[in-house]
Amino acid sequence: MMATMLGCVMTDARVAPPLLQRALTEAVDGTFNAITVDGECSTNDCVFALANGAADVGIDEGSCEVLVRAFTAVCERMAKDIVRGGEGATKLVTVRVTGALTGDDARRAARAIANSPLVKTAIHGGDPNWGRLVAAAGRSGSAFSIDRAAVRIGPLPLFSSGAPHDELAPDAAAYLRGDDIEIEVDLGTGGPGTARMWTCDLSAEYVRINAEYRT
Amino acid sequence: MMATMLGCVMTDARVAPPLLQRALTEAVDGTFNAITVDGECSTNDCVFALANGAADVGIDEGSCEVLVRAFTAVCERMAKDIVRGGEGATKLVTVRVTGALTGDDARRAARAIANSPLVKTAIHGGDPNWGRLVAAAGRSGSAFSIDRAAVRIGPLPLFSSGAPHDELAPDAAAYLRGDDIEIEVDLGTGGPGTARMWTCDLSAEYVRINAEYRT
Repeated sequence: MMATMLGCVMTDARVAPPLLQRALTEAVDGTFNAITVDGECSTNDCVFALANGAADVGIDEGSCEVLVRAFTAVCERMAKDIVRGGEGATKLVTVRVTGALTGDDARRAARAIANSPLVKTAIHGGDPNWGRLVAAAGRSGSAFSIDRAAVRIGPLPLFSSGAPHDELAPDAAAYLRGDDIEIEVDLGTGGPGTARMWTCDLSAEYVRINAEYRT
Repeated sequence: MMATMLGCVMTDARVAPPLLQRALTEAVDGTFNAITVDGECSTNDCVFALANGAADVGIDEGSCEVLVRAFTAVCERMAKDIVRGGEGATKLVTVRVTGALTGDDARRAARAIANSPLVKTAIHGGDPNWGRLVAAAGRSGSAFSIDRAAVRIGPLPLFSSGAPHDELAPDAAAYLRGDDIEIEVDLGTGGPGTARMWTCDLSAEYVRINAEYRT
C-alpha cells in the first residue's frame, strides 16, 4: 500500500528487465509499501524503475543485491519524505512489530497501529499511551498474547508481561516531543514475524487542510 | 465491528436462549455492527440480550420476527447515538452502497468510505467531493466499474456513468450544511449487493479531544 503517489527510480546500469523488476519489487516491499499517512491510497499508485544502460556497468544475478541495496536506500528516503510531508504531519513515526506468529500477522498489526487515529493523535499530543498501542494490536486480527506482549516508546519499555511501567511515562512523554519517533510492539506470541511501517501523527492541521480543500 | 462499547438490550418477554441469541444477532448485524466513528473498536466490544419472562408473552419461531424488529429499532437508535456522540462529530452520515457484486463487496466498500479520513473531512468541510467517495470505493478491493458507477449526495446525483454533474455541486454543498447526511455510492457492477453504514464527520475537535487526553 502506497499513499497516493507515482514514483520513478533510475539507474545508468545495464539491467535485464526481469532482474530490474525483481530488484524494484524487493526495494519497494519494505519502503513504499510500508508507509501510510492516513490509510488513503490511490488506485493508480505505482513505482517505475528505468535502466538506460548508459554506464558501462552490467547487473546480473550475482551482483543484483547491489542494485537492490541502492534502490532500497533511495526508496526508503523518498518513502519517509512522503510521510513527513503528510498533511499537517509534525512527526515521522517508525512502527516496529515483533514477536508475531507470521510475517503477515506482523504486517497486519503494524498497519493497524500505523493507521489508528487514536494512536496518531496520542503521539501528536505527546501522550505515551501504551493502551492505545496494545488495543490497536489486539483488534488487528493478528495472534496476540497480552501476558507476554511488550511496548517500547523510543528506548523506554513502557509495558511488558501484561503490566505497565508508569514510572517511565514522564521520560516517554519527553521523548515524544521529538520529531522522529520509534515505537515497538511485541505481540507476545514468541513467533518470528516482524514488520516495520512508517506513519505520522494526526494533527488538527490535517483536518483543516483536508476539510477546507475544494473540488 | 462496533465502536468501543458494551450494549444491553432487555425484554420482559419469555424467549428461549437460542431464539434470543438469533434475534439479537439479526438485530446487531445491521446496526451496532454497521457503525464507525474512527475505525477504532475494542477487543471486548459486545452486546447482550436479557429476557426475564416477567411479561406473560412468549416468543417462538412464529413470532420471532416481532422481537427482531423491536430489537433492531432499539439497536439502531443506540447505534446512531454512538456515532452522533463520536469525539468532535457534528454530522451523522448514512453511507449506502448499491450495485455491488456481493453483500461482502458492498460491506467492504461501505466500510472503506465510512472510515476514509478524506471523505470524513470533506463532509466536515461541506465539500461535495465525489472524487474522494469514488476513490475510497475504488481502493476498497471490491469489484467496481467506474463507467457505470454513481454517487448521490442526499437527493443529488453528483456523478453517474463515469461523469460528474458539477452543476449540482452548489446544491450538494448546501445539503452538506445539514447534520443528517445521506450518501449513496453505486459500485456499477450491476450486482445485487447492498450495504448501509453509519459514520460521522472528522473535525479538528476530534484531534483536540484525543490528543489532549492523558493516560
